[in-house]
Amino acid sequence: MTNQISAFTSLEELKTAAARLDSEDKLESYGALFDLPDDCIYLDGNSLGVLPVSAKKRAKEVVEQQWGRDLISSWNTHNWIDLPIIVGEKIAKIVGAAPSQTLCCDSISVNLFKLLCGALNMRPNRKVVLSQQDNFPTDLYMVQGVESLLSSQRCMLRTVDSNNLEASLNEEVAVLLLTQVNYKTGYIHNMAKLTKLAHEKGILVIWDLAHSAGVLDLKLDAWEVDFAVGCTYKYLNGGPGAPGFVYVAQRHLAQFKQPLSGWMGHSNPFQFSPNYQSNKNISQCLTGTPAIISMSILDAALDVFNNLSMLQVVEKSQALTEFFIAGLTALELDTDLICISPLEPELRGSQVAVTHPNAFAICQALIKRNVVADFRAPNVLRFGFAPLYIGFSDVVRALESLKQIIANKVYLNPEFEVKSKVT
Amino acid sequence: MTNQISAFTSLEELKTAAARLDSEDKLESYGALFDLPDDCIYLDGNSLGVLPVSAKKRAKEVVEQQWGRDLISSWNTHNWIDLPIIVGEKIAKIVGAAPSQTLCCDSISVNLFKLLCGALNMRPNRKVVLSQQDNFPTDLYMVQGVESLLSSQRCMLRTVDSNNLEASLNEEVAVLLLTQVNYKTGYIHNMAKLTKLAHEKGILVIWDLAHSAGVLDLKLDAWEVDFAVGCTYKYLNGGPGAPGFVYVAQRHLAQFKQPLSGWMGHSNPFQFSPNYQSNKNISQCLTGTPAIISMSILDAALDVFNNLSMLQVVEKSQALTEFFIAGLTALELDTDLICISPLEPELRGSQVAVTHPNAFAICQALIKRNVVADFRAPNVLRFGFAPLYIGFSDVVRALESLKQIIANKVYLNPEFEVKSKVT
Repeated sequence: MTNQISAFTSLEELKTAAARLDSEDKLESYGALFDLPDDCIYLDGNSLGVLPVSAKKRAKEVVEQQWGRDLISSWNTHNWIDLPIIVGEKIAKIVGAAPSQTLCCDSISVNLFKLLCGALNMRPNRKVVLSQQDNFPTDLYMVQGVESLLSSQRCMLRTVDSNNLEASLNEEVAVLLLTQVNYKTGYIHNMAKLTKLAHEKGILVIWDLAHSAGVLDLKLDAWEVDFAVGCTYKYLNGGPGAPGFVYVAQRHLAQFKQPLSGWMGHSNPFQFSPNYQSNKNISQCLTGTPAIISMSILDAALDVFNNLSMLQVVEKSQALTEFFIAGLTALELDTDLICISPLEPELRGSQVAVTHPNAFAICQALIKRNVVADFRAPNVLRFGFAPLYIGFSDVVRALESLKQIIANKVYLNPEFEVKSKVT
Repeated sequence: MTNQISAFTSLEELKTAAARLDSEDKLESYGALFDLPDDCIYLDGNSLGVLPVSAKKRAKEVVEQQWGRDLISSWNTHNWIDLPIIVGEKIAKIVGAAPSQTLCCDSISVNLFKLLCGALNMRPNRKVVLSQQDNFPTDLYMVQGVESLLSSQRCMLRTVDSNNLEASLNEEVAVLLLTQVNYKTGYIHNMAKLTKLAHEKGILVIWDLAHSAGVLDLKLDAWEVDFAVGCTYKYLNGGPGAPGFVYVAQRHLAQFKQPLSGWMGHSNPFQFSPNYQSNKNISQCLTGTPAIISMSILDAALDVFNNLSMLQVVEKSQALTEFFIAGLTALELDTDLICISPLEPELRGSQVAVTHPNAFAICQALIKRNVVADFRAPNVLRFGFAPLYIGFSDVVRALESLKQIIANKVYLNPEFEVKSKVT
């Protein structure tokens, strides 16, 4: 698909190409599965995915019928108790995992804590957790929390530049912790290669799939990944603050032990024994009572992925971002907006990031024109392209707005400099 | 109110008294704030509270409008980012806490882990966490998780009988961890007294308020409580799996440090700094992205408590349970069903527990008659009386069903022995 995207020289050419690409889009019908906001080009699905129609329906059902009418009996009659497993298995199919290794629970950060402690426990003679300096901060913060709790005798964070990762894999390292897709640039790590190199040094690898799940063709089992976490409110469209997920490879489940040993991870929680006896399966990763309402909504949202080819999703994702980058050049925006995302499609997640000294104000001016992108301090403007509900004509509309704003320096208007709490 | 409940000798007398008590009930109007299931006597609000009308309305709004239409902008425009604080402050008023000490986040179990690690860190020369053998299991399991992670050199669980708690408070103990209201019997610990006795030995106290919040007149600040956790899906009616809450007394906030140091607890999360710098206020207890949908529903559910007198709630709670116990005697059920809840109203939470060898089947037979109670292994039948939506005539109807089942040994019918996953 990306080889159909050549150099363009005008807005007209872009519009013509977009119409053709949209007409050939094999995923075009998926748009109808989402309740999209009117007249808005939403390029922030990498931060919060849109509302699936199935999720909207389930939200009403779980609140009004299951909670409101059936109340406590729903734990059995609507199988609330198995939701973490049911939802986990739906995610497993999306990330290339065989059954019984993936569970839905808590948040990425909390799940990372479980995996970090569990993995360090499996490498008692090593203490270094290797990561990269520009990893998403919460991943580094969670390692710092473990370090502070266990002391630097048992856990020590070491961060290096992305370029130095391979050279830093050595026998001191217990755990390699990486986010596959960089949250700012969209750069994709080679998960198969890095996992293999790490294993050669006896290192366990934890992958954060926040910007991967639902938009890349992942093969966790085939790539022999040890552990992974991910969130579900981005490309999996689970809703704001939807619970995260955790993956522990089958071969580690018997030895793996995590410290947030709440009653839901017990082998027989309703026996109410005073002694913790963990499930040896993936359910051992459960801690407290699952967030039933959020998880039910997510469960329905994931139905969008039934029978979906992740290869087709990747193909469209690459075409959308390639088309956007070509558009920046065609409209002569590329001298003002410096692209910091990889130019090779296969190294780029489903987003394009550009820098500009007035990135914040440009983002606000776009939002005023109903084109929603986001800003990352200090000067990054991110455009996310969710392949299931964004089309090529949407990309052109975003580019048009961007051209107006840059050409007329609209971003200098003081109204666009008003900062908000969340950026 | 309880002094109006004398001995009764017949169902007729109970009915007459119930009609009078209902007509005098100052909380009677609160029933209209809930979307109660039709024709059902729901005596399980101690497990899952019913759906408030306000919560039903907000569920639709947060899903369809805030997520569906306003999408990412809702973090600012609907103030999603402050929900943990906003909801925490609503809970603070219910549990007797001044502002800036209570936060809504994660689950009881996860929050307990934060508090246990934080409290142990404040008592570096002690290692014992004292609790009682029949505490709710997840509380004990979380201590066992900390013990296993930190080694028994830094954390050691010691459990004793409830009667031996006071005698076991000594200088070896770092932390006293208790659930105020026993989940089986409903026995209420004297929080003020035990906290004071513990402090005299230099012990920090963590209270689990699962069966207290929303139904007892709590004074966390006045009783000089150090730390507390609680859940919101029981008497606070936040919905299945609604997020928990955590309380850290103001005097400890500067020294307190918890290890689940995710980005939302950072002093400036949107700076995306690689180094964790905790908020020194209660927000340091945040870890990952808050569960916005669940927390929004809870936020609305808590509006039921605006201007509500917790003293009136306690008064009605004691009257309901007293009336139920009197009814067991009046209907000569007390030889078959042995009450294991305290007979002194002020020592009893808002529930009555009885034992019977066929407790499970009796519970199922009650449910078949639209009287919902619950079973706790091996032989306990629990009746929860949520004062905001249960009346005295409801108690009589439950007693009538119970009488039919016991008198006719309905529980021997094999259909009521079919076990389910969740009991």
